[in-house]
Amino acid sequence: MGTTGRTLGLVETQRVVLFTEDDPLVLDSGETIAPVEVAYETYGERAADDRNVVVVCHALTGDANAAGHHGDPTRPGWWDTLIGPGKPVDTDRLFVISTNLLGGCQGTTGPSSVNPATGRPYGLTFPLFTVSDLVRVQRALLSRLGIESVLAAVGGSLGGMQVLQWALDYPDDLEHGIVVCATARLSAQNIAFSAVARAAIMNDPDFHDGDYYETGRGPDHGLSVARMMAHITYLSEESMRQKFGRRIQDRDEPRFDLGVDFQVESYLQHQGKVFLDRFDANSYLYLTRVMDYFDPFADRDATRDRLKATATKFLVLSFDTDWRFDSSHSRAIVRTLTAHRVPVSYREIPSPHGHDSFLLSVPEYHRTVAAYIDRALAEREI
Amino acid sequence: MGTTGRTLGLVETQRVVLFTEDDPLVLDSGETIAPVEVAYETYGERAADDRNVVVVCHALTGDANAAGHHGDPTRPGWWDTLIGPGKPVDTDRLFVISTNLLGGCQGTTGPSSVNPATGRPYGLTFPLFTVSDLVRVQRALLSRLGIESVLAAVGGSLGGMQVLQWALDYPDDLEHGIVVCATARLSAQNIAFSAVARAAIMNDPDFHDGDYYETGRGPDHGLSVARMMAHITYLSEESMRQKFGRRIQDRDEPRFDLGVDFQVESYLQHQGKVFLDRFDANSYLYLTRVMDYFDPFADRDATRDRLKATATKFLVLSFDTDWRFDSSHSRAIVRTLTAHRVPVSYREIPSPHGHDSFLLSVPEYHRTVAAYIDRALAEREI
Repeated sequence: MGTTGRTLGLVETQRVVLFTEDDPLVLDSGETIAPVEVAYETYGERAADDRNVVVVCHALTGDANAAGHHGDPTRPGWWDTLIGPGKPVDTDRLFVISTNLLGGCQGTTGPSSVNPATGRPYGLTFPLFTVSDLVRVQRALLSRLGIESVLAAVGGSLGGMQVLQWALDYPDDLEHGIVVCATARLSAQNIAFSAVARAAIMNDPDFHDGDYYETGRGPDHGLSVARMMAHITYLSEESMRQKFGRRIQDRDEPRFDLGVDFQVESYLQHQGKVFLDRFDANSYLYLTRVMDYFDPFADRDATRDRLKATATKFLVLSFDTDWRFDSSHSRAIVRTLTAHRVPVSYREIPSPHGHDSFLLSVPEYHRTVAAYIDRALAEREI
Repeated sequence: MGTTGRTLGLVETQRVVLFTEDDPLVLDSGETIAPVEVAYETYGERAADDRNVVVVCHALTGDANAAGHHGDPTRPGWWDTLIGPGKPVDTDRLFVISTNLLGGCQGTTGPSSVNPATGRPYGLTFPLFTVSDLVRVQRALLSRLGIESVLAAVGGSLGGMQVLQWALDYPDDLEHGIVVCATARLSAQNIAFSAVARAAIMNDPDFHDGDYYETGRGPDHGLSVARMMAHITYLSEESMRQKFGRRIQDRDEPRFDLGVDFQVESYLQHQGKVFLDRFDANSYLYLTRVMDYFDPFADRDATRDRLKATATKFLVLSFDTDWRFDSSHSRAIVRTLTAHRVPVSYREIPSPHGHDSFLLSVPEYHRTVAAYIDRALAEREI
């Protein structure tokens, strides 16, 4: 591995209020939210004709800071491997917009935001939303910025699900969708992992039905357990073996106790702990649930009509050791798109790193994205 | 599927005290426990020459009631599919002994038992033990019953690990070991799942460092989350798809909320809940930990010496859709045994049911065990 290109360096999150009480966000459910503040970042220069816009859609626990850093160069954005000058999503040529998702907790309105109607955090009174709603907010931000069409939307995992929804909901506005290790419908096992994560959070005595913001403590135990379990699904069995094996933490001989002894335990405990500083338990509930219900091709007639209407072409990528959303999920997407004559390139990328591969500098993956975007840009110039 | 043979009908658990303060159980760690009460059941008639004894070793959450029932025929023992008159472990011909494990919570001394030195439950003062210690207690029970050699030991998962240890620790006493979907060393991913389960329990505010017995409540939330997560690993992705798919519980249309909506969620919640009635959280900690540390072939010289000395022949079985301990674990056992010229038959059994297959009436699995035991009995008669 090895990242090509440079890093963006210092970047800044911007915030904008998109909806008002008079003109609220109307969700798929019919419920409304207002105002909706959105945190976003932009990288690169916007072309005069707006023909170089790329929208980045983040996964379950991402935020607006996809590339560059906020002051500490050792802590770059979550997709800094992919986005930057000379990188596959090349900010020397593209104008990249990255938003924090609706329902998130990193600057965009979500369950931890104050409900103006009550003066208190929404908690579980925040309405349930869909992937369409996530995309609706992104589209509204672009409109606010005066952008009417997008060269490409790109996302991994839940991000890829948003890219798919973009093409269905805004068929004229998206030229290319880059869908990485995503799914068009979670399997029973996928839902099962989500369900256990939510049970861990909601059973935590400090959860207080989601109304924990003013108690001075949240469902930290449950949230850290949820995060630990999720991490198992993000790594391949083989990468766990290589990374940790059965090695003992900080000593030669095992302690033989019930505490943290193996390196893999220490890693998971650490991941569970640091997550608490940056993520809200209610956001975790809503954003896992939005994935469970995602099933954009469920209605065959609607799928036919919408895919017939879409102008979007697709690059779909999966990783051979990903067992969170294995390649069969991506192949199912490709089958549906192909059946409706939507142009799609598909590749299964060899990578030992499991689901996490989409965040890493896997050369064949990066080359494939770079080549696809090069071609997309070249086609535009014709 | 379909079980051949009959069920044993009503059976009874017996209890015996095996060790005393003057003659305590000495664990691998050097620590001692006394007394050790052991719950066990026997099925079939003991032959005059004791040459028909089969020891059953249970998995993580089993108990002494392997076959027959305790009054409710709809709730047979956990291995009633395999053990009974005319079944693969045929109680018309065999004398079967099934014990609850040391550290368990179903009649055998464990963390929930009263420590005579304090008059209070052991909790986390119960010493950590090894698979060797589990087997040591089984061997002591047989000695008490006057049994000096065993035709076969049989077990699945943690049960199979005990069978392997039997052959290493009592090389002259065990003729056949039947090791089903087990492992000789957990992988990093296997340990990771255990670690998250323990974190769920130990982080539960009602855990009180394991000293919860007199508080009127235990770490139920944590234990149920641990059990829910474990259940995901017991089923194959395919069997989950067949069993539940994305079907909604008790209605046609989804509720669209954060609660239990999909059938797979309802199943897991139920499994988590009913588990609380029959299992102790501390036992869960100890019995998962004993698996993490199990690594009987780690010392090459000792392995060589001990396998050279063993008289045991093996049947090793795995299931093709098991991802808790996949076939590579069984093949590793077979490789080690074969390298040391220990006779071993190995089969990977096709079954859609994942790790749980070992508890189910999978015809090829049952035929294989039946044929192996038939041959073992026939050899004895020569």
